[in-house]
Amino acid sequence: MVMTWPALNPPETHTDKKFHMTSLEQTHLYREIHEQPDTLRRLLDKEEATAQALADLITARGIDHVVIAARGTSDNAGRYAQYALGAMNGLSVGLAAPSLFSIYHRPPRFGNALVLGISQSGQSPDIVSVLAEARQQGALTAVLTNRTDSPLAAQGDVVINLQAGPERAVAATKTYIAELAAVALISSALSGSAERHAELMRVPDAVARTLEMNQTVAAAAERYRYMQRCVVVGRGFNLATAFETALKLKEMTYTIVEPYSSADFLHGPLAMIERGFPVIVIAPTGDIAAELTTFAGTLRDRHAEVIAVSDSPELLALARVPLSLPVSVPEWLSPLTAIVPGQLLAMHIALVRDQNIDAPRGIEKVTETV
Amino acid sequence: MVMTWPALNPPETHTDKKFHMTSLEQTHLYREIHEQPDTLRRLLDKEEATAQALADLITARGIDHVVIAARGTSDNAGRYAQYALGAMNGLSVGLAAPSLFSIYHRPPRFGNALVLGISQSGQSPDIVSVLAEARQQGALTAVLTNRTDSPLAAQGDVVINLQAGPERAVAATKTYIAELAAVALISSALSGSAERHAELMRVPDAVARTLEMNQTVAAAAERYRYMQRCVVVGRGFNLATAFETALKLKEMTYTIVEPYSSADFLHGPLAMIERGFPVIVIAPTGDIAAELTTFAGTLRDRHAEVIAVSDSPELLALARVPLSLPVSVPEWLSPLTAIVPGQLLAMHIALVRDQNIDAPRGIEKVTETV
Repeated sequence: MVMTWPALNPPETHTDKKFHMTSLEQTHLYREIHEQPDTLRRLLDKEEATAQALADLITARGIDHVVIAARGTSDNAGRYAQYALGAMNGLSVGLAAPSLFSIYHRPPRFGNALVLGISQSGQSPDIVSVLAEARQQGALTAVLTNRTDSPLAAQGDVVINLQAGPERAVAATKTYIAELAAVALISSALSGSAERHAELMRVPDAVARTLEMNQTVAAAAERYRYMQRCVVVGRGFNLATAFETALKLKEMTYTIVEPYSSADFLHGPLAMIERGFPVIVIAPTGDIAAELTTFAGTLRDRHAEVIAVSDSPELLALARVPLSLPVSVPEWLSPLTAIVPGQLLAMHIALVRDQNIDAPRGIEKVTETV
Repeated sequence: MVMTWPALNPPETHTDKKFHMTSLEQTHLYREIHEQPDTLRRLLDKEEATAQALADLITARGIDHVVIAARGTSDNAGRYAQYALGAMNGLSVGLAAPSLFSIYHRPPRFGNALVLGISQSGQSPDIVSVLAEARQQGALTAVLTNRTDSPLAAQGDVVINLQAGPERAVAATKTYIAELAAVALISSALSGSAERHAELMRVPDAVARTLEMNQTVAAAAERYRYMQRCVVVGRGFNLATAFETALKLKEMTYTIVEPYSSADFLHGPLAMIERGFPVIVIAPTGDIAAELTTFAGTLRDRHAEVIAVSDSPELLALARVPLSLPVSVPEWLSPLTAIVPGQLLAMHIALVRDQNIDAPRGIEKVTETV
C-alpha cells in the first residue's frame, strides 16, 4: 500500500535556529545552486563556437574513441559524456585510469582518440599528466575547465571555459551543471541537428523552474535527519545524476551513500535491501523509465523506502517520498534538471543536521591528487 | 598510538552454533574459495594456447582500444584488465555502457577496438547485446566465461573457458579469480615476456599460501558483528580488489560497503570519515604502496578504524587490524592474492551474523538484466 506522504512542519520551524532563510540565502552554496540558470545561459552563449570547432576536429579526424580524465564531480560529468556522446554521436567513450600515467608511468596508447580533461580548477596533477601524455602522443586534446589559466587548460588543443565564475562553496554545483552543458553543446554541434540545438537552448529555463522544488525538498529533508546510509540508483543518461547526487550527499551530510546502475544493483547489492532501507531512484521520463519503474516496484515489494526523482506519475506513485520534477525535458538533457533536487536535498539534509554547508569538514575546494 | 590487536576468542566458540567448522567446510562457498588454486592451475594449463591466439590477433590487427562488457563481479575483473592491459601492454581499456545497446539501441562505433565480454554464466542479455553489435560492426570479439555453451560465448571470435567447474555458491569467488588469471594470461601472451609468464605460473601456489589466512580472518571477523557501513579503498591494479572485496561484503553481510580509489576518496568522500569509521585499505607492495601508506596515515590521523590488507610492514603498522598477506607477488598479479582475505572476511562476517553464506537473501546465481 502506498500512503500519501504526510504533511511536515513548515520549513521555517526547522531552519530559523541555525540557518534562518535570510542567512541561508547568503550562503555560497545556496547562491551558487540558484545561479545555475545564469551560468548555463552564459556558457551556451559564449562557448558555442568553441564547441563547434571541437566537433569539426572530431569529425575531420574520423575519431571513434574518447578517453576522459576527471575526478570527483567532474568524473560524473564524464559519465554523462559516455551516454551523451555515445547514444547521440556514436562515440565510444571510456574513463581513463590516471594512475597509469602519474604513478605507474606506463601510459597506454591513445591511437586516434580524443582525450578530454574535465576539471573545475584544472589543477590536479594526475589529470594534467593524462592530457600531457596525450599531447605528446599527438592525440587531439580538449579541456572543460572553469580556470582557463590552469595547468590543465595549457594541455588542451581546444579549451571550453565553463563560464561559471568563482565557485566558493566546497561542494561543486554550478560547475557540474556547466560541465554537463559543455558536453551537451559538443554533442549538439557534432550532430548538426537544429532540433537538438533548440532543445539545449531551452534547458536554462527548465533548470530555473526545477529550482522551484526548493521548499518541497526542504520539507522532505526533515525525515532524513538521522539517516545513516542510503543508495542512489539511476541508469543510462542519469547514471551520472545518481553518482553526483550520492557525492553531494556524502560531502555535505557525511552519510554513506552509494550510487548504482539499476542493472548492477540487481547483480548482488540488492541483498542489502531490508525494510525501510532508503533508496533514491533517479528516473526522468525516457527510454530508461520503464526499467526503473519495474525496479522501484521491486524495491517497494521489499519494503524499502523509495524516494523518487521523476516526472513520471506512474513512478512517483511507487515512492514513499515523491520528488516531482516540475518540467519534462528530452531524456538526453534530463541530467541537467534531475541533479537539482539532489543538490537541494544534500543542502537541506545538511541544514537539518546543523552542519556548515559551505565548508564541509575535512575537505578542501581544490584537491590535488597524483 | 597504535595498539597491538588483542587476541579474540578462538573461532570454535563463535562458529559451533550455526556453522560448526565441519559444516562450514561442507558449504559451497568455503569449498569454492579453497578450490581456487586448482582452478587457476587448470586454467593456466588449458587456456594458454587460446590466450596466445587472441594476443596474436590483437597484435596483427594493430589494436589500441579495448571495450569491456561485464556486470557485477565480472565488471571488477574488467577493472583489473584496465590496469593489466594498460600498464603492461599499452592498451587503452574502457568499460562499455550496455544500456546504449540493449535499451537505447544506439550503439557507438567500436572502430578497430577489441570488444571483450566477461561473464561467469554468459547469460545476461545486456552483455550479449554488446558483443552481438561488435560482431556486426566487424570488431574483434573475445569472451571469458565459465559456460562455453552460453549465448555470450556464441558471440566470441575467441572464447576462453574459465575452467572453474560449476559454481554453486551465489557469491562468485573461483570464477572471479579465474577471470583475473585469464586477463593476466592474455597480458603475458601479448608481452611475449618469459619472465612475466613465469611470474604468472607461480600464482596458484601463492593463492594456496594466502588461504592460510583463514583462521586469522575468522578471528578478525568477530569485531565486525555489528558493523553497518564500511569503505574499501585501493588504487591502480588493486582498485579491482577494492571493488570486489566491497561486493562480497555487500552480498554476504548486507552491510553498505563502498569501494573507492584513494584519489577519488580524497575528492569529497573523505568528509564522511569520523572516529571509528571502518576503512579497509587494500595495499600490496608495489608502485602504488607509497601513496596508500600516506592515505592510511591520513585515515589514522582522523581516528578511522583501518583494516589493512598488505604485505608491507610499514602499512600494516598503521592499521588497527592488520591482515598480513603471507606471500609477496609482483604488483601486476597481486589482485589474485589480495582478494583472498576479502573473500574470507565476507564469509566469516556472514558466519558471525548467522547468515546463509551459500544463498544470501534476495539474489540469484544468474542475474539477467537488459
